[in-house]
This record gives sequence, structure tokens and C-alpha cells, in this order.
Amino acid sequence: MHLKRVKAIIEYDGTGYKGFQRQPVGIPTIQQEIEDALYRLCQEKIEITASGRTDAGVHALGQVIHFDISDRFSEDEIQGALNSFLRKKLIVLRKVKQVHNNFDARFDAIERRYVYKIISRRASLALDINRAWHIKHELDILKMQDAAKVFMGKHNFNTFRSSECQAQSPLRTINHIFIKQDGECINFLFSAKSFLHNQIRIMVSAIKEVGEGSCTKYDIIKALEKEDRTAGPQTAPACGLYFLNVRYQQP
Amino acid sequence: MHLKRVKAIIEYDGTGYKGFQRQPVGIPTIQQEIEDALYRLCQEKIEITASGRTDAGVHALGQVIHFDISDRFSEDEIQGALNSFLRKKLIVLRKVKQVHNNFDARFDAIERRYVYKIISRRASLALDINRAWHIKHELDILKMQDAAKVFMGKHNFNTFRSSECQAQSPLRTINHIFIKQDGECINFLFSAKSFLHNQIRIMVSAIKEVGEGSCTKYDIIKALEKEDRTAGPQTAPACGLYFLNVRYQQP
Repeated sequence: MHLKRVKAIIEYDGTGYKGFQRQPVGIPTIQQEIEDALYRLCQEKIEITASGRTDAGVHALGQVIHFDISDRFSEDEIQGALNSFLRKKLIVLRKVKQVHNNFDARFDAIERRYVYKIISRRASLALDINRAWHIKHELDILKMQDAAKVFMGKHNFNTFRSSECQAQSPLRTINHIFIKQDGECINFLFSAKSFLHNQIRIMVSAIKEVGEGSCTKYDIIKALEKEDRTAGPQTAPACGLYFLNVRYQQP
Repeated sequence: MHLKRVKAIIEYDGTGYKGFQRQPVGIPTIQQEIEDALYRLCQEKIEITASGRTDAGVHALGQVIHFDISDRFSEDEIQGALNSFLRKKLIVLRKVKQVHNNFDARFDAIERRYVYKIISRRASLALDINRAWHIKHELDILKMQDAAKVFMGKHNFNTFRSSECQAQSPLRTINHIFIKQDGECINFLFSAKSFLHNQIRIMVSAIKEVGEGSCTKYDIIKALEKEDRTAGPQTAPACGLYFLNVRYQQP
């Protein structure tokens, strides 16, 4: 049997899952569902590798995975069969494509992009429940755009990562932060080669505090300089975060 | 006790409801939920009037209702209490405002706007399930925009209304149809003083058939001229339709 390597672009609603990464049996995760579907297709255990793990409740529009599979299945067959097995799981393979055998969804990524969605209005959410962070008061978009600049470039993000983050280095480089308001909806776009655990959600939380006037851009600068998680704000809810897409070096 | 008339703007996820209009006890409807919440607040039966009834599965971002309620409740109290009673019902009062006692949410409307959302891609839907019509093949947006012009203006829409439609006249005037593509998502915006039962969903279905190449703009013209429901296409699914907002004459 010959194996080929396949890259797939995945969309999911993270609401009912305990995150991407496989956990002990019985805990629903995205990885477990996709690997179960692969097992139904091939009758053998196939492990998938993702470009990045998402936490419980975080969504994806363009998560990327790779796995090795018998070349007796075409890409169309793989996509059709897996999407059929994943029906009603709110996980979808948007694209499936054969790639070089040395392609790595995680290590070959050169940029990851996430969107964080806030809805700022008094009334609670109906259509966007579990899909956005609901903020009951008004936010000053200009102050938020200005405060976001503090995070741009290379910094020690110890203040802005989970105390359980396992990355060896707290240094990360933020390429872009773009904040756009459309009526009551405020979308944050973040891009970087990689992010620390909870980094985006803690940055969003700090920027939102500036928007509501409870702290300033200078408080963020001071918090960043402390390089200490306890100097940072609470982590924003998972439900507002969407893994948008990944860029890879052209082969 | 003095009564005041209140206008409210309502958002809801129509997925779990058998439409807006109250039905026999035990059938979940938007009207029933809101009237139940009003009963909990006032301990009396209050009937609400909507600008338009939506069918089972149709959503709303800006449905408008009016009702009469004791003036011992402020607008803030009404909104806060009803939204609290409606928590987890996926129905939200976005705005509540006192209006003239002769304001009528239905008869004073001068324009109603709806959005219909299609997602055109091979892979099934995860994040937009129950929120859009999934079309598996590509659609020709230019042909669709051209075909939509057939519906503009005043016509006899007998071909494009439910055979159960109770409106006396099949004549309606479409003010605008605007079709916009954003990646795999195609949004149709419709505006008119009023629409017939299922009219938008049957028009969308016809335009979609032009987009996929199974019929032409001239087939739509011929179907319209027949003034007969059996000459029209199937009704598009409810889940893609959103009641966007209503315009009223300035008092």
C-alpha cells in the first residue's frame, strides 16, 4: 500500500467541543471526530496534525491539517466520505488536496490569522449567541485602534499568555492588528507567525478595557513591561474567536 | 391604569420555531414566546402586532412589533424584563420605545427589507448550518443580477407566491433587488412595501436556477406572464431568509 500526504482546510463550530486536541476517551474534540471519521473510511488509525490547536469553544473557518492516507482514495473520495461521516458534527472539510510528503501543517506555516468578534449593544444576542463576545456598553473604536498598536511587532508577551502556556519562549511578533466596526459589530483581525496560548483573547480583553474607558493605552504598555500574567486582564471568552486561515511558503 | 403603546425591534433565530404567528397551544412560535413573557411581566394577556409574519425557520434581525402596556413600566424595564424572560429562547428585543397611540407596526410600514443568504461551495456547512441555503455548485453572479431585474417594479406575482397565500391582490411592487457576492457567500437584498407569502423564497429560487444555468432570464419572464404558481420553481429553504428591517413614515 502506498501512502500519500493530504492537506485539508477545516471549518468547525467549536461550541460543543473541548477544543481541537484529542483528550481521554469520551471528551468531544475536533481531532477525535476527524480521526474517528478517518478510521471509518480506512479501517485503520490515522493521526492528523493541525497548524494550531484551538481551545474549547473557539471556532475555525480555515484550520489546516495534514495526514497520510492510502493512495487508493482520491481527494474527492476523502472529502466526500469524511464530510458524510462528519454530518451533524458541525465539522466540515472545505478542501482536500494532495501535497508533498514533507509538508507539515504545523511547522511549515509562515502566518496564522484569527478574527475576534465583539457585538456591542445593550440587548443580548439571539443570532450570534456563542459566536461573539457580547459587550453591553459602547466602545470607543478609535481608542481601541490606537491601543492595539502597542502589541504590534516583537515583544515578550508573558503578561498576555495563559499561565499554563507551554511555549518555551514568550517572544512573539505580531504582524498586523486590524480593528473594524460595522454597526454594532467590531471585528479584530490578528496575524502572526504563531501565537501563545490565550494570547489573542487576553490582548482583546485589554483593548476592550481601553474601549470602555476603564484603562488606557499606557496601562497596556506598563502591563506588557511587567512580563507577568497577573498584570494582565482576564481572558476574553472563547466564543468570539475564529481561526481564519494559514499561509504557507510556496513550494 | 393608563396604557401606552410601545414599538419594539426584535431579533430571532427562527430555526426552532413554527413561524411568527401564534398557533394552537404547544406549537412554538415567536408571538407565543413574546406574549408569554409579557404575561409574566404584567400578569395579563397582551396581544402583539408584527409588521409581517415570518414562516417557520425564517430569521429576523429587525422585525418590528407594537403592543399596549401599562405606563407603570418604563421602556428600560420592559426591555430588561422581557429579554430576561426570553433568555435561551433565541428571541431578543433590540430596542423598545414609546410611540403614538395610533402607531401600527403592520399598517404604517412603508418599506420592508429582507436578506436571503446563499453559500455556494462544494463542502457542506458547519458555522452557517440553518443560516443559509447551501448550493453545491458555482453560480453565475452576473446572470443572476441580470435576471433579478425582471422582478423589479409592479407585477402580478401569482407565479411567485404560495398557493396558500391569502392576500387578495397578487400585485406587488419591488423597489430594489441587490445581489452581492463576497467569496462563497451570496446575499440578496429585497425591498418592497410588502411581499406575498413565500414570494422572496420563490424569486430567489428562480434567480438561483438562472445562476446555475438550468434556465434563463427569459424563462422567468414567461413564468411571470403565466400568473400561475405551477409555472414557477420550488420555494427556496426558509433558513436562508432574514427579515432585515422596516421603514415607517416619519410622524
